Amino acid sequence: MPRIAEARAGAEPSSPRQRERRQSILRVAADRAAATGLEQVQMHDVAKSAGVAIGTLYRYFPSKTHLFTALMADQIEGLAARVPERDADTSPEDAVFETLRTATRRLLRRPALATAMIQSSNAARATSVPDLARIDSGFLDLLLRAWGVEQPTEHHITRLRLLILLWYGVLQSRLNERLTPEKAYADLRMGCHLLLAPGPDGG
Amino acid sequence: MPRIAEARAGAEPSSPRQRERRQSILRVAADRAAATGLEQVQMHDVAKSAGVAIGTLYRYFPSKTHLFTALMADQIEGLAARVPERDADTSPEDAVFETLRTATRRLLRRPALATAMIQSSNAARATSVPDLARIDSGFLDLLLRAWGVEQPTEHHITRLRLLILLWYGVLQSRLNERLTPEKAYADLRMGCHLLLAPGPDGG
Repeated sequence: MPRIAEARAGAEPSSPRQRERRQSILRVAADRAAATGLEQVQMHDVAKSAGVAIGTLYRYFPSKTHLFTALMADQIEGLAARVPERDADTSPEDAVFETLRTATRRLLRRPALATAMIQSSNAARATSVPDLARIDSGFLDLLLRAWGVEQPTEHHITRLRLLILLWYGVLQSRLNERLTPEKAYADLRMGCHLLLAPGPDGG
Repeated sequence: MPRIAEARAGAEPSSPRQRERRQSILRVAADRAAATGLEQVQMHDVAKSAGVAIGTLYRYFPSKTHLFTALMADQIEGLAARVPERDADTSPEDAVFETLRTATRRLLRRPALATAMIQSSNAARATSVPDLARIDSGFLDLLLRAWGVEQPTEHHITRLRLLILLWYGVLQSRLNERLTPEKAYADLRMGCHLLLAPGPDGG
């Protein structure tokens, strides 16, 4: 990864054709990482398979870190766009848990890709990789919808931030098999209840 | 990193001289990673600076992943060995928070080393890197002491496991500057209270 490129943000696509090119780059990168892991992904190979010039690739994604952080942000925004309606007999905390379980299962279908996205977003610095903020806001949006909160206050946002931090730990523990699936989902469920349930003061 | 070595655990030192050699390897590795980051650390350079043969290094630590996972386990066991007595006017949850804040601050003094240890323990598989379990049990031991729990039940262990998962998220967010120090410690403190405080049923 060229060091100098790391320090700047990627360009934003504006025309439909540019957006399509960006999508095709992300699709190819996802498939490559799922097959080989992050380390083996080569930028020139991604460019070639996506049918774009290497300069175009680097203009959108100055490094692999930018590329896979963007991919994670897109995936989370995709999940946020299709949160199902909550059943009347599901508690808000359980609805959040179900949403997190679905997201986790989807990510774990391609564990090498999930690892690549987590590694990249962990390596990204907030100042030079703006998509990092898109992950955080997309995730918050996803969980606010699942929780059924329309007018979020600092109270909701803080508790969801704690839950997201905990969720990263759970996902990582599944990726390196420190927790069994049963334990991981039981932990996630308990985390939702302890962090989100209304306290004795109703807050 | 030689793939074949990844799949086996390292040897355990038995004599005082072997333990001393192991310690000196770990010290050198920590200094190197703190200065250059994990990627630039070379196993042959670590062996040379620690004054051991490369074969000896690989016998104890079959890969960089093993090396830095062991280092993290040693550091956490070191913290567990010196948990201060709790003041009478500090709540158990606040005592746990203070312990986590101290651990976080100590780790963040050398951020490149902290990143190297986190990356390595994230990359390690529980089946081939036994030190991963030593991190988990050392951390649990540390926090049980801070909490003042002498006869832990499943209740205590589950809640601390959730807190540790949350803590990894907080540490990672500091390492890539997604959270300010103030927000990170406020989150950690709130996490301790929500996850550890006795519920309405006293549990």
